[in-house]
Amino acid sequence: MASETKGLTLVFTGSGKGKTTAALGMALRAWGQGMKVLILQFIKGGWKYGELKAAEKLGPGFEMRQMGEGFIKDAGESGLEAHRQAAQTALAEARQEVREGKYDLIVLDEINYAVHYGLVDLADVLEIVRVKSPGLHLVLTGRNAAGEVVELADLVTEMQEIKHPYAAGIPAQKGVEF
Amino acid sequence: MASETKGLTLVFTGSGKGKTTAALGMALRAWGQGMKVLILQFIKGGWKYGELKAAEKLGPGFEMRQMGEGFIKDAGESGLEAHRQAAQTALAEARQEVREGKYDLIVLDEINYAVHYGLVDLADVLEIVRVKSPGLHLVLTGRNAAGEVVELADLVTEMQEIKHPYAAGIPAQKGVEF
Repeated sequence: MASETKGLTLVFTGSGKGKTTAALGMALRAWGQGMKVLILQFIKGGWKYGELKAAEKLGPGFEMRQMGEGFIKDAGESGLEAHRQAAQTALAEARQEVREGKYDLIVLDEINYAVHYGLVDLADVLEIVRVKSPGLHLVLTGRNAAGEVVELADLVTEMQEIKHPYAAGIPAQKGVEF
Repeated sequence: MASETKGLTLVFTGSGKGKTTAALGMALRAWGQGMKVLILQFIKGGWKYGELKAAEKLGPGFEMRQMGEGFIKDAGESGLEAHRQAAQTALAEARQEVREGKYDLIVLDEINYAVHYGLVDLADVLEIVRVKSPGLHLVLTGRNAAGEVVELADLVTEMQEIKHPYAAGIPAQKGVEF
């Protein structure tokens, strides 16, 4: 197999479970290959312990920053403003890290969702995708990915929810959901 | 959030990229929570270096066994028999590990595909799901998941391919595909 190196833009979207999880798996695979990985989480903050603990245990080369404000659906008017500010800070950091080129793979977790909710501008996200260095793998997750993001991406998977345990009244499980 | 512990059966199926990758991410999250994880790969063997290297670096508590024969599409008549034998060995090991209860999360990677190709019997897979201990999380990946597997599962996501770089002539990339 010819090994031509090209940084890909990958999008995991859709309503089903597995978007962030696949991004984590991709980060793990890249880390296994000795690549430097950064995961910037846009919406989540403070409850996804499993992945945070894992990142801490993996140590250098696998970095995770939770920059969100948690569940956005619970946010009122003022809460939404806090979400917006947090997302803007995360966006600025994403822009800087993509420019600086210290990482081989960067995950912008839930950024599609952040665009959908109007927390960040689509134009800013498209710019990040366009200016990234050719060698960088960029992963954008979150439901409701914009058509323009899909257009720019090399790989897009839609995770469709066929069945979810919440529907059967089963609460979130350690190691699976958090 | 009430934390009632229930081992889930999760299925990642569909044609899109992200099934094994999501299983890896789930394994990482569980490992982050201090759980013991086993990944048994049914079809793959000898080329998924990234995840194998990662597993080796993660050390105890995160175990991966590649028990497949590689790409099944390339297999001829005699090749298929080798695939079948390898899959049967993997199945026996899966059955044993699920029974012994040493792990908190077990991934049976590509097992749906193995069923679809007739390498293992659906009845055997259903039995594994049925006899698993109530606390064990079991993840079954691979396209063409059987309806009976979906029926038994707590969570099912179908990964739909919207766009894939192979279609644009971009070869497999280190850290992404392997």
